[in-house]
Amino acid sequence: MSYPEWKTGMTTPTIGVFDSGFGGLTVLRALVARLPGARFAFLGDTARLPYGSKSRRTIARYAVQSAQFLVREQGAEFLVIACNTASALALDAIQDAVPVPVLGVIEPGAEAARAASRTGDVLVIATGATVESHAYAAACRARGLRALEMACPLLVPLVEEGWTGPLVAAGADTEASAAQAASAPPQVAVTAEVIRIYLAELISEAAAQGMNPDTLVLGCTHYPLLRPLLERVLACVVPAGIRVIDSAEAAAEAAALLFILQDTKKHSPTVQVPTAQIRCFATDSVEKFERLGSRFLNQPTGKVELIDLGG
Amino acid sequence: MSYPEWKTGMTTPTIGVFDSGFGGLTVLRALVARLPGARFAFLGDTARLPYGSKSRRTIARYAVQSAQFLVREQGAEFLVIACNTASALALDAIQDAVPVPVLGVIEPGAEAARAASRTGDVLVIATGATVESHAYAAACRARGLRALEMACPLLVPLVEEGWTGPLVAAGADTEASAAQAASAPPQVAVTAEVIRIYLAELISEAAAQGMNPDTLVLGCTHYPLLRPLLERVLACVVPAGIRVIDSAEAAAEAAALLFILQDTKKHSPTVQVPTAQIRCFATDSVEKFERLGSRFLNQPTGKVELIDLGG
Repeated sequence: MSYPEWKTGMTTPTIGVFDSGFGGLTVLRALVARLPGARFAFLGDTARLPYGSKSRRTIARYAVQSAQFLVREQGAEFLVIACNTASALALDAIQDAVPVPVLGVIEPGAEAARAASRTGDVLVIATGATVESHAYAAACRARGLRALEMACPLLVPLVEEGWTGPLVAAGADTEASAAQAASAPPQVAVTAEVIRIYLAELISEAAAQGMNPDTLVLGCTHYPLLRPLLERVLACVVPAGIRVIDSAEAAAEAAALLFILQDTKKHSPTVQVPTAQIRCFATDSVEKFERLGSRFLNQPTGKVELIDLGG
Repeated sequence: MSYPEWKTGMTTPTIGVFDSGFGGLTVLRALVARLPGARFAFLGDTARLPYGSKSRRTIARYAVQSAQFLVREQGAEFLVIACNTASALALDAIQDAVPVPVLGVIEPGAEAARAASRTGDVLVIATGATVESHAYAAACRARGLRALEMACPLLVPLVEEGWTGPLVAAGADTEASAAQAASAPPQVAVTAEVIRIYLAELISEAAAQGMNPDTLVLGCTHYPLLRPLLERVLACVVPAGIRVIDSAEAAAEAAALLFILQDTKKHSPTVQVPTAQIRCFATDSVEKFERLGSRFLNQPTGKVELIDLGG
């Protein structure tokens, strides 16, 4: 309790953000950009990651324990499930288990795809468990979109290995980008080739189903770190162009809006802290979290606190 | 208890084999080849994998629970820890926790390297946690070898994604192999390039340290599935030749010897079942275990039973 505002009993509430690992820090980064004066408690359930290869029952149990920690121990009054797998498989279970509003990343991602797509045909890349849940397909179908989903299990380890290359601004001049790609270190060339293999298969499958996709949803919070590379590869694979939707950005946008509405109702006026206050918790591998997390958060995570959820 | 021999109260003991996932099935495969008339209980702690990125404390807790299941619930009288990470970080804890002999994979792997190496300089590739423990380096040093270890975090996901190519017999004619590599599907070419990047870095680091390595230890039970590809890449990177040691094979060799010695003492004569009896247990993802496991075991796993270790 090192924040002076907390001692004075003022009412700026805490937003709890939860992920199985630290990928959800990309959602936190986008939230901080929108709510620079808010307080955040982030929990990465790193002892039990990855959720992406586990069953619905196990994922729900882990996610509920994590959500309860944020609400009961950290006093979160609003929860963002910054994990596609947990959003896809455990959102209902979490909403039943805690007495605060809970927002996942799937619905905002699908909503952003609806706003972006003209053809109504959407591609989704995600982890195995997210794809098997067909949560994106269902959310898209509810909005009149057709979605084709594909699991890309190698992308998370490639991001964690740091084989993502420099984070070149997306949409850069294509010729320069091509030259850059040609001179990329072999690690980045591997990642580009993995992306190309996945996308080529996905686009060929879409064509076989008579789809005309114009939008690609990044359905995993690790993927924003691959966005520049993804957009470069997409430009080669689909010359007509495909718009990339980042579900982390979309979720942060929706969460900020909902939070401000809720906050205005409950706490008027909001006491804003001068800059965003972030506390990070992890169930294991604190050192790895601190080392890699800053790349996802785009600022240092600060000291990450180890907690035990008893798993 | 579906095996008739168990009902008659005969005394063929059960060998418990444990891994964080199903990679350890490569050790079980090698054990079955050596003890075709034995009974095996294999446990994959799939709900909590991968161990490779977790802390020593967490890994020890998980591994002890798993070992206790095999001994207490399945009556194992001999345990093989078919997981490099658990062997590196939790062998002592397991040996303290169960009253039966326990063999890990590190010591047999290092012993096989000692037998193979002429220069005394050995390379080891493994998961992050195994490398950080420096268990192989210590086991090699105890045998008068110098070891240089390297974490290769992308290799396990590449194996699990099946981007390993056909399992061509190793040591095939080089020209044919080169042609084969050139015509390999792009997925296999990616895996070959990832292996090349890792090995080139490892060999360059060895040279910088004045080492003259002639042996490479596969310090992860997923890696035997990459062995043909690894040997092809090694032939390109190190024309002088490097001998590949599979710690799964080495551990099975040692375990079979120890088990036969122990068994002869305790049960004479051993009641052999007609063919190896294998029961597989997993803490999650039974379907994935059954689907991928047969590639590691080189025969169907049979019905995998789901158990709960309470994690």
